[in-house]
This record gives sequence, structure tokens and C-alpha cells, in this order.
Amino acid sequence: MPHIPLPGHLPGITGLLEYSQESAQPIRVLTQLLLRGPSTLTPGERELIATIVSHQNECRFCTAAHTAAADLLLGDTETCHIMKQDIDAAPVSHKMKALLKIAGLVQVSGKAVTSESIAEAKHHGATDLEIHDTVLIAALFCLYNRYVDGMATVAPTDPDFYKGLGERLVSNGYNRLPNGYDHLK
Amino acid sequence: MPHIPLPGHLPGITGLLEYSQESAQPIRVLTQLLLRGPSTLTPGERELIATIVSHQNECRFCTAAHTAAADLLLGDTETCHIMKQDIDAAPVSHKMKALLKIAGLVQVSGKAVTSESIAEAKHHGATDLEIHDTVLIAALFCLYNRYVDGMATVAPTDPDFYKGLGERLVSNGYNRLPNGYDHLK
Repeated sequence: MPHIPLPGHLPGITGLLEYSQESAQPIRVLTQLLLRGPSTLTPGERELIATIVSHQNECRFCTAAHTAAADLLLGDTETCHIMKQDIDAAPVSHKMKALLKIAGLVQVSGKAVTSESIAEAKHHGATDLEIHDTVLIAALFCLYNRYVDGMATVAPTDPDFYKGLGERLVSNGYNRLPNGYDHLK
Repeated sequence: MPHIPLPGHLPGITGLLEYSQESAQPIRVLTQLLLRGPSTLTPGERELIATIVSHQNECRFCTAAHTAAADLLLGDTETCHIMKQDIDAAPVSHKMKALLKIAGLVQVSGKAVTSESIAEAKHHGATDLEIHDTVLIAALFCLYNRYVDGMATVAPTDPDFYKGLGERLVSNGYNRLPNGYDHLK
């Protein structure tokens, strides 16, 4: 049960974004920019960053939601599945492996990001901006995961819920409210 | 030395906000809303939340900057100093002690926030919105601290730097750029 009364029909982050609509707006804008805005990283690659951080933070709602979005964008369910167990074994580029490892270090602490981890990413062709965006996306999901779990929001157990949410995140991005809540815009 | 080239004259978060101005905008808006917007928590109390989280994350730049802002807003340097060593000993209300402890738990993990810590805050009069805002401010500083340290930004050692920054945060808030950079707006 959430620590404060939240709309019961909107689990996880969705109820929080409705509860506090004024703070939700810049959070949505930042997320849309970082995960869907112009970038040399694909939306699928950026959802992998969101997924690995949420997974390491053991945030069930965010992990399931962003796994669903990444699966759809990448066209397979294996990449997320393998990445969660072993980044090096995931079927992604060497550059993405290095960036996902940086994201994993950011989850631990900003101070955990080593010069070696950055050098590895650069060695595999990561640009300064890709490194910047990886760190900021990872930091943003450290915010989300803490917001969602710190308020003890409900995480549905039905896999279909996350499939539907993933579809909305792919088709609508982060600026829009879930279907049926356009009147709250 | 930062992991990517950043403006050398703008240390800590300030160089990152100039490097990535498009993502900086919603970050600034969210921070201004949460730390300076209408609230039953004073700006000084909200700076204490930012300070305790930054302190626990050992983010030198953010801790010094928000300590400076809190000191100015509270009119003393003791509150922050004592709080960092023992929240219970800090000269703040019982409600604020409970909220600062919640913030400290959010720093560890969203999952670390217990029903007991929430009940304690409510017992001392914290409203649902105050609890919400405390969790979100703490989560936001988990983002900031990781962004600042994950990019290995420079933290000046001169205390006068933070005194000046604290003064700007008090007088200008978070929507404005540091003095001299208005042309970047």
C-alpha cells in the first residue's frame, strides 16, 4: 500500500505523476528529451540504460515497464533478459556494453564511475555526449526508482499490464499521460 | 578532471547545465518548484533535505553548495553542521527530524523507506504532500549527486566559492544561471 493515498487505478509512477502534476511536467519533459529526443543512441538503447539501472535498484515497476519498452523497440526479449544477468553477454555493441556498465556504476554512486570505465566507452567509439547522456539517464532512473519505491507505490503482477504500458511508452513517449487521462493534460 | 570536456570556469553542476542546456531546463524547473515553490516546508527546510542527501552521497560540490544556501536561509551554520552528524540532535522540529530521516533512507534506496519512518513523520504532523515532496527532493538530489560526481566535475576547495553560490541560490533560485551567464538563457 502506498505511504500516502494515491489514485488506486494508477500504479507505480503513473499515480505519482497524477498526484503531483506540477512536478510531473518537468520530469516528463526531461525523460522525453533523454529517452526519445535526438541522439546517436537509439530509443531502444536508451531504454536498456533505464532498464539496467531500475533492475540494479530492484525497482519492480520500473524494471518491468522499461523492459517491456526496450523489448518492443529492440524487437526481442533476449537482450534485456541476458543483460540483466551479464552485460558482457548481451547481444549489443561493444560501445553499448561499456555504456551500460557506466550506467551500472552510476546506480551504485556517482563516485563509482571510474576513468577506466569512461576510457573503455571512448575506446569503443562512445562520444562525449553519449557518455553524458548515459550518466544523466542513469541518474534520472535513480530518481524514478526512489520516487516509485520510496512512496511504496503498487507494482501490478500481471505481465499484460507492463506490455500495455510498454506499448504506450513506445507509441506515445513520455510527454503524454496514459490513455484515458488526456483530460489531465 | 571531468570525464568529458566541460567549461573550465564553471565547476560542479554549473558546467553540466551549460554543457547540456536542453536537459538543464526541466532540471532547473523541477528544482525551482520543489525547493522554492509554494510549500508548507520553508526553503531553508527544503535545503536541509538537499544537504543531508548530498552529504550521505558524499557529493562534495552539492553538499557545500546546499549547506551554504541552507545556512543563509536558516540564519545559522549550526543546524547543517549538527544535522550531518546526528539528525536527532539538530535544532529543527520533530517533524523535520522525521522528514530528514526519510530523506536519508531515500538516499540509501526507495525500498529503505519504512512504514515506521512514514508513521513517525505523520505522528509529528507531516502532511501527505510534505512526505511526497521530501521523497521527491531526496530522489532529485540522488540524481544531481550522481550527475555531478558521475561526470567527475571539479569541486572548488575555496569556501568563498560556495558562499557566493549559496547567495545566488538564495537570491535567484534555480531558474537563473549564475551571474554573467544570462546570455545563455
